[in-house]
Amino acid sequence: MNKRFVTDVRVRYAETDQMGVVYHSNYFTYFEAGRNEYFRSIGLPYKNFEEQGIFFPVLSCQCTFRKGAHYDDLLQIITFIKEVKGVRITIGYEVWREKVLLAEGETVHAFIQKGGGPLNMAKKFPQIWQKLLELCES
Amino acid sequence: MNKRFVTDVRVRYAETDQMGVVYHSNYFTYFEAGRNEYFRSIGLPYKNFEEQGIFFPVLSCQCTFRKGAHYDDLLQIITFIKEVKGVRITIGYEVWREKVLLAEGETVHAFIQKGGGPLNMAKKFPQIWQKLLELCES
Amino acid sequence: MNKRFVTDVRVRYAETDQMGVVYHSNYFTYFEAGRNEYFRSIGLPYKNFEEQGIFFPVLSCQCTFRKGAHYDDLLQIITFIKEVKGVRITIGYEVWREKVLLAEGETVHAFIQKGGGPLNMAKKFPQIWQKLLELCES
Amino acid sequence: MNKRFVTDVRVRYAETDQMGVVYHSNYFTYFEAGRNEYFRSIGLPYKNFEEQGIFFPVLSCQCTFRKGAHYDDLLQIITFIKEVKGVRITIGYEVWREKVLLAEGETVHAFIQKGGGPLNMAKKFPQIWQKLLELCES
Repeated sequence: MNKRFVTDVRVRYAETDQMGVVYHSNYFTYFEAGRNEYFRSIGLPYKNFEEQGIFFPVLSCQCTFRKGAHYDDLLQIITFIKEVKGVRITIGYEVWREKVLLAEGETVHAFIQKGGGPLNMAKKFPQIWQKLLELCES
Repeated sequence: MNKRFVTDVRVRYAETDQMGVVYHSNYFTYFEAGRNEYFRSIGLPYKNFEEQGIFFPVLSCQCTFRKGAHYDDLLQIITFIKEVKGVRITIGYEVWREKVLLAEGETVHAFIQKGGGPLNMAKKFPQIWQKLLELCES
Repeated sequence: MNKRFVTDVRVRYAETDQMGVVYHSNYFTYFEAGRNEYFRSIGLPYKNFEEQGIFFPVLSCQCTFRKGAHYDDLLQIITFIKEVKGVRITIGYEVWREKVLLAEGETVHAFIQKGGGPLNMAKKFPQIWQKLLELCES
Repeated sequence: MNKRFVTDVRVRYAETDQMGVVYHSNYFTYFEAGRNEYFRSIGLPYKNFEEQGIFFPVLSCQCTFRKGAHYDDLLQIITFIKEVKGVRITIGYEVWREKVLLAEGETVHAFIQKGGGPLNMAKKFPQIWQKLLELCES
């Protein structure tokens, strides 16, 4: 099974800044777009989690920038699971413009139930847990 | 009573675009900042409305741009009530950089109760209604 | 020739607010996405204009909201030219979620040359001017 | 000399998401606001750098989240220099709501000259370099 998923994102004018490149914080919304389509691709759309009272808030996020992305660029966001452990999942991302790697980063999410407590995914949703483990690269 | 309220907003780099000016949609977040401080200034912080299950969703919004705002500009957002009528309120805005008018616009909001139905502010909250009418410029 | 163009936009989590719907100013970035793909579809990608020193800054914008858009909704942005006149173009937009009209609005743009002066599109770029006139709905 | 600088930021409604807290990428614009006021406070407004053809693009950024920030919260952004070395500067941030630490992070910036080459700040601007070294916490 291919464990990496590619999502295309077109850079919006609104996302550029006066340096003429995409403002750095917008890469995290590209990561979100990649993550969103990744979960849909594995049959687990994130929207369905929230509808069942399960949330994946961001515990930390990180991005390293190599080259600037420009207005109207068609970017490829590569998304993959780096680690699943306890009540946390780490998702990795790469942002490419054709053959050029522009940025790479990750987001760490908690599994939380409505109300805020941690969710033991392995116990409560063993099939989902198993699937995430299988998709995990590490 | 002075019916207009001034809020200062510092332009963020993130709000500029590659034309070197503030991207147009960001003026609506400046309007929000002006509206937010306006309601606080008249003793009716918007947060308190939502805590009581009252919402002011935006029905329409409009802005006309005269001059560009630049990174690090300290803008003055002038906010005032243009009309209060039935279950609607129209709020007006001007954006100045010292003596230069950069933009002007308005937002129209509904008074809504939790669940989505219209709220008869005049009947349910007559004191607030009276205050809004007194502050109204028209 | 079909004068209206449809662009799909997927609502991002970042674009929602605590009311659980898309924050109003984000519709203008959806309009931008629609406008961008519209110009590409007629063989005039906006990026090419800027590369030739031609800019279309926004003179005014407006939006009326009918229903809220939600996270992960797949929206259809319908874009069309409402008016072309002198050094201005007015572009119209509708935002649909399948059969439901969520919002409609417009943006008015100036034709500007590098340095800021108005551009007489009819004289300098008669073929482009003619195409825009033909596509215009009014 | 106090090496840390505090900037107040009021959370905008636009910055919240449907989880009812500030969407994570917006913390990087809060960091920008803190960094901007920090440089102004030490007599080196970032705008002046760009006017002289000097840019500080972001090479990487990181944030860890402890508690959610809410609409209308008045946040304190604490900014400080973590490291100055070669053609790079690392800036640290903490986001507090009164006595509660909500988030902490950093951004790493390059010193770049117009055109894109690295800028030897120590050689070209020794006084600025000296000041940055003195303010550095490490």
